[in-house]
Amino acid sequence: MGNNYTEKNQMYVSVDCIIFGYDEGRLKLLLGKRQLTPGYGEWALYGGFVAKDEALDEAAARVLTELTGLDGVYMRQAGAYGTIGRDPMARVVSVAYSALINVRDYDESLLKEYNAVWVPVEDVPPLFSDHGAMVQEALRRLRISLKSEPACFTVLPQLFTLTQLQHVFEAILGHELDKRNFRKRVKQCGILLMTDKKDKITSKRGAALYRLNPLVEYHF
Amino acid sequence: MGNNYTEKNQMYVSVDCIIFGYDEGRLKLLLGKRQLTPGYGEWALYGGFVAKDEALDEAAARVLTELTGLDGVYMRQAGAYGTIGRDPMARVVSVAYSALINVRDYDESLLKEYNAVWVPVEDVPPLFSDHGAMVQEALRRLRISLKSEPACFTVLPQLFTLTQLQHVFEAILGHELDKRNFRKRVKQCGILLMTDKKDKITSKRGAALYRLNPLVEYHF
Repeated sequence: MGNNYTEKNQMYVSVDCIIFGYDEGRLKLLLGKRQLTPGYGEWALYGGFVAKDEALDEAAARVLTELTGLDGVYMRQAGAYGTIGRDPMARVVSVAYSALINVRDYDESLLKEYNAVWVPVEDVPPLFSDHGAMVQEALRRLRISLKSEPACFTVLPQLFTLTQLQHVFEAILGHELDKRNFRKRVKQCGILLMTDKKDKITSKRGAALYRLNPLVEYHF
Repeated sequence: MGNNYTEKNQMYVSVDCIIFGYDEGRLKLLLGKRQLTPGYGEWALYGGFVAKDEALDEAAARVLTELTGLDGVYMRQAGAYGTIGRDPMARVVSVAYSALINVRDYDESLLKEYNAVWVPVEDVPPLFSDHGAMVQEALRRLRISLKSEPACFTVLPQLFTLTQLQHVFEAILGHELDKRNFRKRVKQCGILLMTDKKDKITSKRGAALYRLNPLVEYHF
């Protein structure tokens, strides 16, 4: 309800995509080298400007597909970044988007075509502008979301063992979990259903396969 | 890393402030009537444009103080809103900010000076543009944050009874909680310390006063 529409206060809005990839027990981040001045050649998130006739969410999806080939990835917002001088070239407010996908689901050939690289989150190099802060905040939110949202289950098959689930939690949290306590918590919260199927690949006796219980509101 | 800096893609960025107020057991929302076309006279959140030489967070603090007199309120982001046509006058991307304060701490005279009104969240009227969606999302986040962040303790005195705390939780969640389960959970999670002081105003025997345990990572 504030001041008036004054042309001189218009600015650029961009989107930056924080794509976390789960890769067999490790959490990685999709990075590329910046193709634009300022910051040409620096490691950076994949991002781009929002067009004037384009919704914010649409821009994020377009930019991700154009620059990485990734299509149909569900991204959620991870904060707006708007300090002065975060882009030395112009005033740019950026909205960060993040997603968690399974690296296996990503076509290797696309990675090469687009020069995108999966880097383990603990080895992320210094990034352009405030992209490093964006990544840290997105990671913080991803960790918190383990308790309140079934987001991490997108990287698991529909039926999974408790060991597989624990590995996903450990990769996201960045530390190991006590197996007994983890299983106790799974039981307590009631979000999983044990099926009558068994996984016989990883153990001889076969580990029970579980699935998300659609009737229970997720909380871990 | 996308396309170039093309002047025609510049747009307005605004901030909108979702101020929740805790008022003795009830959760309220600070609203005003819009003083700007489009939407003149409609109920709306307090908001305004970000100036070109102003950081996003600074703009939010400035707008809130200018329009409501509220000063020094810690606001956190609650999402960026950027569909086409959300403002029929121009392309405006808005970043929502939200805060939870105690209505008692707010000077009544300022309310009158600025024509701001506290409305119980369950009675919020239709709001301008997508402000209603902003409020719903901020409320959803506030509810989730009860589990992971001590944000709600800002509306309590430093020492409080478990009944006071339960009332805050109930106001935010919008429903009553079972007293016994609530107290069991408080004990389990270990985030509170019982002091040797008692509150003798609300009960004759005196209810034990608690405070946040600074040594325990908050989780409820």
